[in-house]
Amino acid sequence: MPVTDIATRTYDHGWRLDPIVRSLLDTDFYKLLMLQLIWRLHPDVQATFSLINRTRTVRLADDIDERELRDQLDHARSLRFAKKELIWLAGNSFYGRQRMFEPAFLSWLADFRLPDYELRAVDGQFELRFPGPWTHTTMWEIPALAFVNELRSRAALKGRGRFELDILYARAKAKLWEKVERLRALPDLVLSDFGTRRRHGFLWQRWCVEALKEGLGDRFIGSSNVLLAMDADLEAIGTNAHELPMVLAALAEDDAALAAAPYRVLAEWQTQYDGNLLIALPDAFGTTAFLADAPAWLADWTGFRPDSSPPIEGGEQIIAWWRARGVDPATRLLIFSDGMDVDTIERTYRHFHGRVRTSFGWGTNLTNDFRGCDPAGGAALAPISLVAKVLTANGRPAVKLSDNPAKATGDPAEIARYLRVFGDSGRVAQPVMV
Amino acid sequence: MPVTDIATRTYDHGWRLDPIVRSLLDTDFYKLLMLQLIWRLHPDVQATFSLINRTRTVRLADDIDERELRDQLDHARSLRFAKKELIWLAGNSFYGRQRMFEPAFLSWLADFRLPDYELRAVDGQFELRFPGPWTHTTMWEIPALAFVNELRSRAALKGRGRFELDILYARAKAKLWEKVERLRALPDLVLSDFGTRRRHGFLWQRWCVEALKEGLGDRFIGSSNVLLAMDADLEAIGTNAHELPMVLAALAEDDAALAAAPYRVLAEWQTQYDGNLLIALPDAFGTTAFLADAPAWLADWTGFRPDSSPPIEGGEQIIAWWRARGVDPATRLLIFSDGMDVDTIERTYRHFHGRVRTSFGWGTNLTNDFRGCDPAGGAALAPISLVAKVLTANGRPAVKLSDNPAKATGDPAEIARYLRVFGDSGRVAQPVMV
Repeated sequence: MPVTDIATRTYDHGWRLDPIVRSLLDTDFYKLLMLQLIWRLHPDVQATFSLINRTRTVRLADDIDERELRDQLDHARSLRFAKKELIWLAGNSFYGRQRMFEPAFLSWLADFRLPDYELRAVDGQFELRFPGPWTHTTMWEIPALAFVNELRSRAALKGRGRFELDILYARAKAKLWEKVERLRALPDLVLSDFGTRRRHGFLWQRWCVEALKEGLGDRFIGSSNVLLAMDADLEAIGTNAHELPMVLAALAEDDAALAAAPYRVLAEWQTQYDGNLLIALPDAFGTTAFLADAPAWLADWTGFRPDSSPPIEGGEQIIAWWRARGVDPATRLLIFSDGMDVDTIERTYRHFHGRVRTSFGWGTNLTNDFRGCDPAGGAALAPISLVAKVLTANGRPAVKLSDNPAKATGDPAEIARYLRVFGDSGRVAQPVMV
Repeated sequence: MPVTDIATRTYDHGWRLDPIVRSLLDTDFYKLLMLQLIWRLHPDVQATFSLINRTRTVRLADDIDERELRDQLDHARSLRFAKKELIWLAGNSFYGRQRMFEPAFLSWLADFRLPDYELRAVDGQFELRFPGPWTHTTMWEIPALAFVNELRSRAALKGRGRFELDILYARAKAKLWEKVERLRALPDLVLSDFGTRRRHGFLWQRWCVEALKEGLGDRFIGSSNVLLAMDADLEAIGTNAHELPMVLAALAEDDAALAAAPYRVLAEWQTQYDGNLLIALPDAFGTTAFLADAPAWLADWTGFRPDSSPPIEGGEQIIAWWRARGVDPATRLLIFSDGMDVDTIERTYRHFHGRVRTSFGWGTNLTNDFRGCDPAGGAALAPISLVAKVLTANGRPAVKLSDNPAKATGDPAEIARYLRVFGDSGRVAQPVMV
């Protein structure tokens, strides 16, 4: 006779909530690096973040129960950093550096809680906003995205049979392992998991990370997910994001200050971090404009993360910039993280191999690729292009131009002003797949 | 914190044996039909069964610990038919017939236990023999095969990591489901599980049966495995095997009696069973010889199970035989069960569709197809051609010629005598894949 643990069964029946995020460390590492900078240099800035679903054809508010989303958001607001998590942040080395986070910042984190949110459903989409101090609202980005993505997966799989789910996950595991076996053929690959925000679910991301660890060994350098990095003794990976130039640009008093904002971000960053954390994200207002006016000292930085131009063109543009400044690209690093998958990783790796160091941040197509896996067919599990962006800073509209106009965000009049200031050179519309 | 059930963990640590066979019903249904016939008509015959590994390159006794095989055999000898199992055999209908098994037979079964065995390792192979009354030794066939096959799987997977096993089974599940999706495209398919003897393992067979039930619906008519049929409320499928003509041929006093033996088996069978159980197995001593001298009344039987000639040629030979006797093949049934897989099932189905009813018994390639699934590569999980055959009956050597000389078994001098009696017509050597 099979043995069933009655206590477990009874507990399962009485669940109020299956929390998607159970720790404030279940976020991307770059949030903590940016948070320390914001806490030190911009403690009084107010920044509102907003959820943006670029895949308008998917009506999220029809698929996901608003009550369930509220429950997850409310549960996340009840979380605090656990003592052992703060001890780990204090005691662990990150990017080869001890004491990355200063004691006063960690003391401040001990009292941190996520601020309130505003949620309503409008025309089949969620209007989800996080107003408040930048030091707090910035921490909503990753859990908010993870909630919506995982609630969408749960909704798609609600009521499915035990067997159907078994096939679904068997196929997804087999599919990911095929990718791992292909990536294994790239001897100098450097790859990390960037898939927290778009993950099918937390447990699935954990499985994917385990698969990369098992299959790629040292070529898998770590995870952007701080909790998974801690639990699996992996490196926590990440540097900085568009929110820094977006906020500083929004706060600029005039067009001249706006034009200087992207470089002010870098100047601030290098007062805080060094070594392999000196990675510039060049595309917030167009890479071509950014490189044209970049300060000479930027050539001393470790590398760039071209994030919205096609990887090979984007990389070549940066290599040409280095060469023009007398820098040997082989001593520098390019990090590719924009919708990568095995095909583009292979192609990009081979293209640049031996000419420049490369590193790949593998996101959506790592942790949310169930295409072809659902025995029921259909696209209910297809990933969507969901982001959480700064909407306003101190009440002023924030803008992102990107190298890909399809990824631009912000008020149209402000976008027009930014285009006047930064120009439109080198920006090419590409379909946004994920 | 994860909850671990301490009692379960402690129990797991203390296991003496993980029994491969936990019920005497974990056998093929045809064994019970044949057993009732043997019990009624041949209660005094002594028959020795023997394990035969046709895949000589696989040195079973090197791969499998003899002690573990003994432990499984000994455990099987401790089994009795459970009360609920006998009640089910009495109360269930089989092939549309109530009371298939008579009460006296079921009473006799209540005291049944598997007889002793002889086991030794010779030159890397197991010499495993079951001497004793035919009424008892016949029941060793399926568990003996299942033991060796599952112990081989276990040996191949011993010491593998948790993750590697996860990938292995994910791939195997995905692989089987691809097959199910292909078979779904055959609207009039009639298919059953014949995979007990060659299964990778009991739990895997159970999963495969669940997959067919889920994926094929009514086109999956049931399982040869009596225990799985009972537990999953499926039809138990099966008719008769080569052991009947082999034993009756071995007992034949002279060549004339030998030539008549295959038909005597059929005559006996039809005194016991009717309807869809009237399926002739024509190939024990060559199908061509069998059909040439077959009695006219055999044309009234429901069908044939051509088991060692290529399915299309074998089927056509039988259709021609029916036609020559004025029988419309569309009213008859052909059961294909020799090493079938999706390709051959599709081809055979399409070839005969609309001309004759077909049914497929899917064995090794259903329950033991891990080819390409092992992340470690290699062939440790490749199925082998393992059978358990009658070696002697009342001390006289038993022979099987088969339509495929590669599948012949028995003493060479006796094989030569059988070839004189039955001829060699229509026998064509084919590689034995599984």
